[in-house]
Amino acid sequence: MERLQAQVGFILEADKLKQILRQTLVSGGEGRRENDAEHSWHLGLMALLLREYAAEPVDLLRVVEMLLVHDLVEIDAGDTFVYDEAAHQDKEEREQKAAARIFGLLPADQAERVRGLWTEFEARQTPEARFAAALDRYQPLLLNFATQGAAWRRHGIRRAQVVERNRHMEEGAPALWAAASELIEEAVRRGWILP
Amino acid sequence: MERLQAQVGFILEADKLKQILRQTLVSGGEGRRENDAEHSWHLGLMALLLREYAAEPVDLLRVVEMLLVHDLVEIDAGDTFVYDEAAHQDKEEREQKAAARIFGLLPADQAERVRGLWTEFEARQTPEARFAAALDRYQPLLLNFATQGAAWRRHGIRRAQVVERNRHMEEGAPALWAAASELIEEAVRRGWILP
Repeated sequence: MERLQAQVGFILEADKLKQILRQTLVSGGEGRRENDAEHSWHLGLMALLLREYAAEPVDLLRVVEMLLVHDLVEIDAGDTFVYDEAAHQDKEEREQKAAARIFGLLPADQAERVRGLWTEFEARQTPEARFAAALDRYQPLLLNFATQGAAWRRHGIRRAQVVERNRHMEEGAPALWAAASELIEEAVRRGWILP
Repeated sequence: MERLQAQVGFILEADKLKQILRQTLVSGGEGRRENDAEHSWHLGLMALLLREYAAEPVDLLRVVEMLLVHDLVEIDAGDTFVYDEAAHQDKEEREQKAAARIFGLLPADQAERVRGLWTEFEARQTPEARFAAALDRYQPLLLNFATQGAAWRRHGIRRAQVVERNRHMEEGAPALWAAASELIEEAVRRGWILP
């Protein structure tokens, strides 16, 4: 069972995603930061419930597959805060290297398949990837709002930054972007996002 | 957008699953216990990678859907340790009550659908549910082994208990049960599970 051994090795390596912290806090967590594994689960759940808002018909399994694997590269590359311009400079290089090592633990056919899912997610060129990417932006907006803008306030985030970084939601899920836009404006009114 | 409001309400309620702790430790987490959200993500990932070991052909989307929602009732009912006989006495009653409240936050059509997924998972009467349930048992075995039997040792778990509680894996994924059986025997040899 050499094949199963490689798969189990990958599954145990993936366990490390539970240690990669994001900037977003979990609600009711007394200030605890969310980790990538929790975030990925939350996105998968959202995909099942919000598919009716996808801009185009989507293969839901493919959406969920992308969401469950999309952050695995951060085991090596770390989480890059969406509003951190400097860290985004070398994000792709760090993540490509991570992808080669981490997905390379799998049997070759699965390594290629999972890397394909990750590449598709990052490129946002398919309806599935655009919808998945919209959820990946909507979830932290919801959590940030639910935690009184904790991550926005800590980093002094401005309205223009939030709109700029999240507006691609409209391509994947226009109705969710409309809802998100209202939420952003309300957060500005409450002083959680700078004008 | 009353419908979206109900869906978002449910998604934020689901955020609480990140606070429900299991007995299993995460590997490399310096003794940190795994929470249900992390566990559910890990199972979803395993389903994508291990489907070839399902006893019968499975609808993979349905498997993943079940795994992503299967622990939500624990937001109210709490995690019941698999080897805690006493807590299992009223587990179903507690969980049925939780299901009614939590799934009831969704629009009626989705409440029914998600409750159906959870009921199917619990009943283990379909190939998808049996495979999903096998993964739900295999994952803590892998993590317990990777953490030197931490949860087994803390609770003084015996070999017969482990076999009794996990042998239904064979119905859903015979090859994974074979691998799990070897792992259990090795854990007994190392003194992590009592003979």
